[in-house]
Amino acid sequence: MRGRNPADTVQFPNGFKFSAASCGIKASGRLDLGLVVADPGTTAAAVFTKNRVVAAPVEAGRAALASSHGRLRAVLVNSGNANCATGTHGLRACQHICGELARLLQVPKAQVFPSSTGIIGVRLPSEKILARLPELKDGTEALGIAAFAQSIITTDTRPKLASTCFRVGKAEVRVSGVAKGSGMIHPQLATMLVYLFSDVSGTPSQLKQILCRVCDETFNCISVDGDTSTNDTVLLMASGQSGAKLEHGRTRSRFEQSLFDVCRSLSEQIVGDGEGVQHVIHILVEHARSREEGLRIARAIAKSALVKTAWAGADPNWGRILAAIGASGVRIEPGKISILIGDQLVCRRGVRCNFNEAKAHRALAQPHCRVQVGLGRGSGSAEFLTSDLTAAYVRINADYAT
Amino acid sequence: MRGRNPADTVQFPNGFKFSAASCGIKASGRLDLGLVVADPGTTAAAVFTKNRVVAAPVEAGRAALASSHGRLRAVLVNSGNANCATGTHGLRACQHICGELARLLQVPKAQVFPSSTGIIGVRLPSEKILARLPELKDGTEALGIAAFAQSIITTDTRPKLASTCFRVGKAEVRVSGVAKGSGMIHPQLATMLVYLFSDVSGTPSQLKQILCRVCDETFNCISVDGDTSTNDTVLLMASGQSGAKLEHGRTRSRFEQSLFDVCRSLSEQIVGDGEGVQHVIHILVEHARSREEGLRIARAIAKSALVKTAWAGADPNWGRILAAIGASGVRIEPGKISILIGDQLVCRRGVRCNFNEAKAHRALAQPHCRVQVGLGRGSGSAEFLTSDLTAAYVRINADYAT
Repeated sequence: MRGRNPADTVQFPNGFKFSAASCGIKASGRLDLGLVVADPGTTAAAVFTKNRVVAAPVEAGRAALASSHGRLRAVLVNSGNANCATGTHGLRACQHICGELARLLQVPKAQVFPSSTGIIGVRLPSEKILARLPELKDGTEALGIAAFAQSIITTDTRPKLASTCFRVGKAEVRVSGVAKGSGMIHPQLATMLVYLFSDVSGTPSQLKQILCRVCDETFNCISVDGDTSTNDTVLLMASGQSGAKLEHGRTRSRFEQSLFDVCRSLSEQIVGDGEGVQHVIHILVEHARSREEGLRIARAIAKSALVKTAWAGADPNWGRILAAIGASGVRIEPGKISILIGDQLVCRRGVRCNFNEAKAHRALAQPHCRVQVGLGRGSGSAEFLTSDLTAAYVRINADYAT
Repeated sequence: MRGRNPADTVQFPNGFKFSAASCGIKASGRLDLGLVVADPGTTAAAVFTKNRVVAAPVEAGRAALASSHGRLRAVLVNSGNANCATGTHGLRACQHICGELARLLQVPKAQVFPSSTGIIGVRLPSEKILARLPELKDGTEALGIAAFAQSIITTDTRPKLASTCFRVGKAEVRVSGVAKGSGMIHPQLATMLVYLFSDVSGTPSQLKQILCRVCDETFNCISVDGDTSTNDTVLLMASGQSGAKLEHGRTRSRFEQSLFDVCRSLSEQIVGDGEGVQHVIHILVEHARSREEGLRIARAIAKSALVKTAWAGADPNWGRILAAIGASGVRIEPGKISILIGDQLVCRRGVRCNFNEAKAHRALAQPHCRVQVGLGRGSGSAEFLTSDLTAAYVRINADYAT
């Protein structure tokens, strides 16, 4: 993946206002309802979970984008309840809330996009949400993004934001993002939600193409516990107010790079804030036949309970990594495999090297460590971000909470 | 799967002798070398790990069975060292040891079958093994199976044995098995090894067919941590001394049932002895399009870290099970899914039922619990044995041990 970190000091894209409220879904009384209001003319594209079990807001959001032809005026997010496995009641509740918000904002109902995250299988308390909509609407402001970022989190220990900008001709284009997610997390709380904002100008199909490519290299290359949520959503909105248009090749490529930087930063923030995570591991697979093959190997390593528990102990146990590679389904040749942990070559041609165990151990004991695998099969490569599997993760998720 | 438990009091099949020794691979001084000597005329068949990274003894064992055309006279197992990722040195060491044992026993070298289990990537101390071969050979006895079962274990807390028998005409046919394995286990110790013995008479290809079918319904339907070892081996040997022949349909079907009973019992013993396991979960998937589809769903549930940590807390969290089913890759219809935990119907048509949470919690708090899933797609079904994922599992596997 490409490097450059987005600066956090840049200005936020024009054309969006935010607000947040506590409506009482979270027993703690914390912010649990967030609103984005977008100026007229805003275009949008989204990608959703591939889980066959999808929450009501995912169904409703997909339908809204289709019937509005990629135009959005508002995004409403609640945390604390996923509105998933709630049957027709859940879908009707979601549609009713969107309708009420559209009426208040005087925008078409199909241009309101809903999201939910939280407990699965519990009815959404729609009356609590409805009661707060007027307050939420009146509270919108251009700089309210910090409160919005707070309102969408569940077991995250901190809100997640990233911003960057670029100049093209006389125009300054801004790209910002907000995310929540820390694995598939707390008892019955799930989900990664990501909202991306820009003042670039583009059609929904231009946005969709770029969003898919960027997600493929960022949010689709991270894993904490290997579980896939029922509510995952990444939404990109473009207000067009910078005047720079995606139809120009140079704007398009710089925008894609900027969006990549923002999404890469949010991805790292999500893994780093994963439940019980002590170590973020950057897996780099090289000399694969293709990027897809490299990703299969990286995912196999990132999903192995034995590898992830070794990392929890900062144990440079390369035998488990080798065994996970061998079980990946890729027809690797063991005699061509090399493995590096930090800067220590621990395995060459499938056999142990004389390496400095203390150094490899120290590398794994850092908050971030790189694990590099060479397959000796071709020129494809893939990067993947994952974490260790700690006793804290088990404790958090084993609490009897139903 | 079929029920009936094998009795532990039955006689052991004729035609096999066992012994065990401590050769010093295990620092603890425990038994770490086991020998089976089979009478002339013994036929054999084996299935091996599907991992692309295979240990030297797996390569050597596969070659031995091929060149001896399925005839075996001896099995030599060491524990404490997997002889995996040890390059050509490892393979030569394994072959040399088999050659020395063949010379001592005065049997063809190709009829000696080797196995290893233990740490990956460390050279096999072959001189320690060679030094004990004469003692091991002189110590063989028909009732030495208990010591043999002890000698092959690594982090198992107990040896694993099962036996049964059946009569056909005047002949009594005996079927027994010995296994080791408790997940993919201790730091760098891996592997499930299973040795099955019978005095039935059959060709290697008859044995292979039956062994594959039985493994498919037993050892291929269990999972502790989802990791696949580099050394897994299931070996079936038949001395023929009962006089009953597999060419007779009735003998064949009764033998297959008996072998299934023994393997089913060993499977349950392996999962029940899994590292850190508190609860063994029997997953039953029904109304799938096919058994294969049911197995995909069962494996997806059995591999979900979130589901397995919920079970560790005896938490009847059906939302996580539903989400794991949705992420399995099978095109399930969420609105047709039902889930039972113990005797409590917790989810019907994809939506929460009014169930007794205390009863569901108590069911999951037992050492064994059944979780049933209905897909509403067809008449296929599958059973699968798995376990919870506990903080103890993480602690055992996170100890810095390289």
